[in-house]
Amino acid sequence: MEDFKKLRELNIKETKKKVKDSVTDDLMIVQSVNHIEDINKVVNILIKDLREWYSYYNPEFSEQTIEHEEFVDSILNKKDKKIKDGMGADLKKEDLTPIIELCTQIDNLYKFRQKQEKYLESMMNKICPNITAISTYLIGAKLIKHAGSLKRLFLMPSSTIQLLGAEEALFRHIKTGARCPKYGVLHNHPLISKVDKKDVGKVARMLASKISIASKVDFGKGKFIGDKLLKEIEDRFK
Amino acid sequence: MEDFKKLRELNIKETKKKVKDSVTDDLMIVQSVNHIEDINKVVNILIKDLREWYSYYNPEFSEQTIEHEEFVDSILNKKDKKIKDGMGADLKKEDLTPIIELCTQIDNLYKFRQKQEKYLESMMNKICPNITAISTYLIGAKLIKHAGSLKRLFLMPSSTIQLLGAEEALFRHIKTGARCPKYGVLHNHPLISKVDKKDVGKVARMLASKISIASKVDFGKGKFIGDKLLKEIEDRFK
Repeated sequence: MEDFKKLRELNIKETKKKVKDSVTDDLMIVQSVNHIEDINKVVNILIKDLREWYSYYNPEFSEQTIEHEEFVDSILNKKDKKIKDGMGADLKKEDLTPIIELCTQIDNLYKFRQKQEKYLESMMNKICPNITAISTYLIGAKLIKHAGSLKRLFLMPSSTIQLLGAEEALFRHIKTGARCPKYGVLHNHPLISKVDKKDVGKVARMLASKISIASKVDFGKGKFIGDKLLKEIEDRFK
Repeated sequence: MEDFKKLRELNIKETKKKVKDSVTDDLMIVQSVNHIEDINKVVNILIKDLREWYSYYNPEFSEQTIEHEEFVDSILNKKDKKIKDGMGADLKKEDLTPIIELCTQIDNLYKFRQKQEKYLESMMNKICPNITAISTYLIGAKLIKHAGSLKRLFLMPSSTIQLLGAEEALFRHIKTGARCPKYGVLHNHPLISKVDKKDVGKVARMLASKISIASKVDFGKGKFIGDKLLKEIEDRFK
């Protein structure tokens, strides 16, 4: 009986340790990139409120200023001149205060997002320097997120990596015969927006294959070859 | 021709004035209550992130602390003791920093919500003191929002007021013969949660009828009778 109790205790201890060790660095990366996407969602909700609310006061300025960050910044720094004889209502000071407070809040969230992006960038540079060098930290993190973990990314064939994030379009292609997607998360890669439209599929394929190599190096903690891999693609499409 | 130009200018001026004047105080109320609902949505998104992320570090504490505000507060004031031999991973300081920053951000949003609620409360007390006295400022504002404006609320029969916010359930009732809803927005009224379940429908009906009276007084800027109206209901269900 005594032995049995001991065994049980050891077992619990072992399990706890396993749970503890399951929190790996790439899990932090997945959390962080999910979180940044949520911050974007949150900011969009509040911006929509701000635009609607502010438009009662100064509709002309809201129309002119399309960039959200510029819009918030202008209101906070009182650069939002109200034109004379405009259509905006003359709100009292107490009605303007909550609108300006909303601006401050959105501005805080912008700064907050910046900090979270910095954290993600430093994590990516530490854990997956090679993937980051090829794909930028944000796209790299999204690839890991879609794959599930760095380990799963490294086990994937490069054709799967190419389409990560385009699952919906892929299944539509299989089911209805619609056009096959050329890329998923890679869509935002700077190289893809730079090359000719006819080369886009080729670039995506090459990127995916290099990322596949990079993920193997990163998972095995090999040395840094990311810059060389990226250069090979860039040279092809100069 | 000269006359024609003048007429046109006058017309534009008149229209601009009309647009300007269309921004009434109850519109500010609707904006504000919509905005408070959006803040709640935003806070919920971020809290979900926080809980998930923090649980890697200290799952036991997240389990124990159900109240969100208490949870955020405890982390910020370092009252979140991590038990020895727990299942949480030992995160490095750089991994904890973004989690704590997220807490700060949520805490800011709580304070921000408080300010916005104060603004709404003061607006309600100013524009609709009678409705506010009977239904509390938040429920009153939601009623105005669902009605569209104070004017539309005052034109509604009290049976419509009773069901404002329960449109979905009402149409389900009409279409499928499901149970007819007893209340919509009024659902959160303190009196409704206080009385016996069998009286709930009666209370909702009385509240709606008194709110209907109150909205007429408020729209006509009559004198304050809200406390008397509320007392009449309270006396019936003591």
